[in-house]
Amino acid sequence: MRTCYTGEVSKEHLDQTVTLFGWVHRRRDHGGVIFIDLRDRAGLAQIVVDPDNVEAFSTAEHIRNEFCVRVTGLVRLRPEGTSNPDLKSGEIEVLCREIEVLNASVTPPFQLDDDNLSETTRLTHRVLDLRRPQMQQNLMLRYRVSIEVRKYLDNLGFIDIETPMLTKSTPEGARDYLVPSRVNDGQFFALPQSPQLFKQMLMVSGFDRYYQITKCFRDEDLRADRQPEFTQIDCETSFLNEEQIREIFEGMIRHVFAHVQNVELPAVFPTMAWEEAMHRYGSDKPDLRVKLEFVDVGDLMQDVEFKVFSAPANDPASRVVALRIPGGASMPRSEIDAYTKFVSIYGAKGLAYIKVNDAASIPEGLQSPIVKNINVDALSKVIERTGAQSGDLIFFGADKAKVVNDAIGALRVKIGHSEFGQQNGLLEAGWKPLWVVDFPMFEYDEEEGRYFAAHHPFTSPKDGHENLLETDPASALAKAYDLVLNGWEIGGGSVRIHRADVQTKVFQALNIDAEEARTKFGFLLDALQYGAPPHGGVAFGLDRLVTMMAKAESIRDVIAFPKTQRAQCLLTQAPSAVDEKQLRELHIRLRNTEVK
Amino acid sequence: MRTCYTGEVSKEHLDQTVTLFGWVHRRRDHGGVIFIDLRDRAGLAQIVVDPDNVEAFSTAEHIRNEFCVRVTGLVRLRPEGTSNPDLKSGEIEVLCREIEVLNASVTPPFQLDDDNLSETTRLTHRVLDLRRPQMQQNLMLRYRVSIEVRKYLDNLGFIDIETPMLTKSTPEGARDYLVPSRVNDGQFFALPQSPQLFKQMLMVSGFDRYYQITKCFRDEDLRADRQPEFTQIDCETSFLNEEQIREIFEGMIRHVFAHVQNVELPAVFPTMAWEEAMHRYGSDKPDLRVKLEFVDVGDLMQDVEFKVFSAPANDPASRVVALRIPGGASMPRSEIDAYTKFVSIYGAKGLAYIKVNDAASIPEGLQSPIVKNINVDALSKVIERTGAQSGDLIFFGADKAKVVNDAIGALRVKIGHSEFGQQNGLLEAGWKPLWVVDFPMFEYDEEEGRYFAAHHPFTSPKDGHENLLETDPASALAKAYDLVLNGWEIGGGSVRIHRADVQTKVFQALNIDAEEARTKFGFLLDALQYGAPPHGGVAFGLDRLVTMMAKAESIRDVIAFPKTQRAQCLLTQAPSAVDEKQLRELHIRLRNTEVK
Repeated sequence: MRTCYTGEVSKEHLDQTVTLFGWVHRRRDHGGVIFIDLRDRAGLAQIVVDPDNVEAFSTAEHIRNEFCVRVTGLVRLRPEGTSNPDLKSGEIEVLCREIEVLNASVTPPFQLDDDNLSETTRLTHRVLDLRRPQMQQNLMLRYRVSIEVRKYLDNLGFIDIETPMLTKSTPEGARDYLVPSRVNDGQFFALPQSPQLFKQMLMVSGFDRYYQITKCFRDEDLRADRQPEFTQIDCETSFLNEEQIREIFEGMIRHVFAHVQNVELPAVFPTMAWEEAMHRYGSDKPDLRVKLEFVDVGDLMQDVEFKVFSAPANDPASRVVALRIPGGASMPRSEIDAYTKFVSIYGAKGLAYIKVNDAASIPEGLQSPIVKNINVDALSKVIERTGAQSGDLIFFGADKAKVVNDAIGALRVKIGHSEFGQQNGLLEAGWKPLWVVDFPMFEYDEEEGRYFAAHHPFTSPKDGHENLLETDPASALAKAYDLVLNGWEIGGGSVRIHRADVQTKVFQALNIDAEEARTKFGFLLDALQYGAPPHGGVAFGLDRLVTMMAKAESIRDVIAFPKTQRAQCLLTQAPSAVDEKQLRELHIRLRNTEVK
Repeated sequence: MRTCYTGEVSKEHLDQTVTLFGWVHRRRDHGGVIFIDLRDRAGLAQIVVDPDNVEAFSTAEHIRNEFCVRVTGLVRLRPEGTSNPDLKSGEIEVLCREIEVLNASVTPPFQLDDDNLSETTRLTHRVLDLRRPQMQQNLMLRYRVSIEVRKYLDNLGFIDIETPMLTKSTPEGARDYLVPSRVNDGQFFALPQSPQLFKQMLMVSGFDRYYQITKCFRDEDLRADRQPEFTQIDCETSFLNEEQIREIFEGMIRHVFAHVQNVELPAVFPTMAWEEAMHRYGSDKPDLRVKLEFVDVGDLMQDVEFKVFSAPANDPASRVVALRIPGGASMPRSEIDAYTKFVSIYGAKGLAYIKVNDAASIPEGLQSPIVKNINVDALSKVIERTGAQSGDLIFFGADKAKVVNDAIGALRVKIGHSEFGQQNGLLEAGWKPLWVVDFPMFEYDEEEGRYFAAHHPFTSPKDGHENLLETDPASALAKAYDLVLNGWEIGGGSVRIHRADVQTKVFQALNIDAEEARTKFGFLLDALQYGAPPHGGVAFGLDRLVTMMAKAESIRDVIAFPKTQRAQCLLTQAPSAVDEKQLRELHIRLRNTEVK
């Protein structure tokens, strides 16, 4: 049997005989001696095979990379000057007494330490890719996060209750993955987009505190940080208000960072109203590490000659903002041009700017193509309000509010994280959590001409906002909250509606008529009638949280067997064609039969 | 905020003011005072509302069953003679100071303490059904089992790694649930029947010790103890042999029983070869609590006149067994007739028996319709071999081995658990675990004329049995094991094949040709080439384990939202018809369009 993991042999085992299992990471012949770097999930150890040990040596001579072996040997100090401080086993080596090949390996299609592999290669040969130490660490980190979440929640009386994977299709928001029923001809299950309604029903059933780390499914067009199936830390509790719920779950995130990575997050996470976040950062998930803020200047621009500013300044649906970049006057023209191109992705038609060469002399000290079209008074007030100093740069956004928020919000983050931003102290280090609260209940969709739920249709309005559901839905705020960490939304939730009459009003505001409400959500409306408790909860995206903690580039680096952006598994070749017999049993046929 | 759970108020809180949240379980008016049994997930407490407290009393007067309320009040001793030893709060009551209705309830469709509800009623109103104390306890027990499993495995270095839910269809054994792909026209994912191949690949990747508590899916015709989706405790480890693997996992079951129910299982679980289990009990999952055993008497019956015995006695595919029932001579004829009918379910054409009135005088002391057709010598040897005493009864099974094993195996359990069996000491109390080992590799299917994998096609043959795969597949034994508890298979597993050449031989024995093997399992064969470690594992059925521990009647009683035997969710009405638009996006259409 194994004495310990290969990566954990250390000076503690000096002069002891150990038995290790692992894979040959590298073999070197040096001065007639064979050196093997043996690897397992805990790390590497150096094995020395001496030619005096004839049997072991002859075995070792035939060993190649990725062979799986058992080694028994004596732990001794490495010769002076050859220790490796990067390894736990770096001060010792194992003098091989016996070595047994448990399984040979053909030559791998790539070197495990090649950092320039394409994603296609990595996902096709995922079994080997997962042997890479970084991937081993990522998945072990993911495990530690999930187990610490469980410990924290268990300690507070939350219980894990499994909800169904084969559920009812209620298309609202994302597309469902459907599962045809064999027994019930013509009917389909849907894979859950989240356990939302089940966890609410568990609260009505009196389970009081629920959690589940569970797979959710959305059949959406995939982006870099999306997967068809993803993992949610899903929680719900009864009898607590918004603040009490947030306190529990920011505690969970603090616990996880402290126990998994030994990182202390702030003792209290700040909160910011959604409106303030949009106002100051143009985003409901502001990266607070970036020390740049929007300054509204629309009121200053209403009468200026420059139509690009004055038109939106006089339109209530638009905004005009300034973004002061300390030290930005030194930014080369090429960088400004690159940013102009960057904001165009978000629909901005240009990117006006002013270089503040001398803040004391206006307009002479200001360098910009637009200065001549803006009166001195307005310019002075912009300099004053933004607090711009000589040597700064001011960017402007002027357009429909959404375009300005998206474009200048993204620009703000882009500049903060740029080389310029880092060199000029615009980016703080560390973790900056933020609760964004007081979201609007509804978002108006211009195209469809109706309101949609900003969070989901089961979110409670703020106390006193119940009547606004009918009189002024756009102004109704919700008991909803998102937890934002360094510009990523890692979780979100809300206090739910626990009264059937309020739920009905929200459905009305969403243009869901009584019949549709009954067909889709009748079981929820029924449940709310039987003394449903006040309740609320939260869901965290585990993939995203772990990606951040691992500082990985993609969520695919923290998922063992992810799908590509075409929703395919390159390892197993799923999805794939199936037998006609299977389709017949499921009462379906393909539309484009020539495909099969 | 809540002081503690309602069910946990006790003498410890005497003279303290507590705040409780819960549901009105019962309201009684007695002597001008209102008594409320308040309920939450922890249990009940008695609230007393005095008419002197005018406001609280007037609220309480309008409260009905299942209202959700908050109560603040003083904990005091119940008057002498009125305490309730069944409740943790049974010695105290809470004198109500304030009561607030958090949500009213319409009259529930049934009384929560009605034990005679139909399953249809319970599943249709599952939200209320889950409020029943028994269901609350069942799901909390289930949670405790899963968290103790995690603690035990975490402690041994097992890590939870999530495997995909959208996988490849490889029809073998059970039917897959299919999920049409929108992005990949004409192709389908399958929901996993188990994470078997993924966990093996994780071993090849070097993760060494893996576990997952995860949903698996089989689209089979449902029996009482089956669900379309079920939960598996799925584990795999590298570098251990069969005995070492079993030791770890029987330790897990011992840990769970000890920590969840304070039950000590045996320090070592016995093992029994599959062949012995079939021989002695006619079953590969014998209930060892039942103190009855098969005695083979075929050799004694080869020459008897009684054709029902002599024919199978001379057929190598058949067997003739005796089952001695101590004290059974007193069994009334009606009971024997009922057993005769019972064994016919399993294909037995009759149920021969002998009442041993006087074991010392043969044949006079034997009472049976068949005695006259069996010679005295054979009868004497049957009495001797079975050890039958005066007053016993002997049942016989004589048919194809499968029929005898199924019929007399079931009869053995039936009699053991009958009133007769319990009164005559044929049923031991407690938990009787057993590892059944040395399963055959293959089972021959007469209908299809080929071998099937007895466990699954990735199971390793016993050392030295590799050549039998080609020469005599029927004799090849596997490194497979099942954990049986009181006659239920609660888990099973095997050492896996870790060499590509052996895996290929097994596929050949199963008539899976090279092309089919490559199409279905190419990724596994590839993985085995790269230094795959020796590995093996086990999977436990969580639903079944918890059902046993909860002494529930059905696995549906330990699942929050189960499906019916028609694979339907009566609460949400899943599966259901879906929009034509959804089907079009998935490139499928219904076969029987009139259904939609």
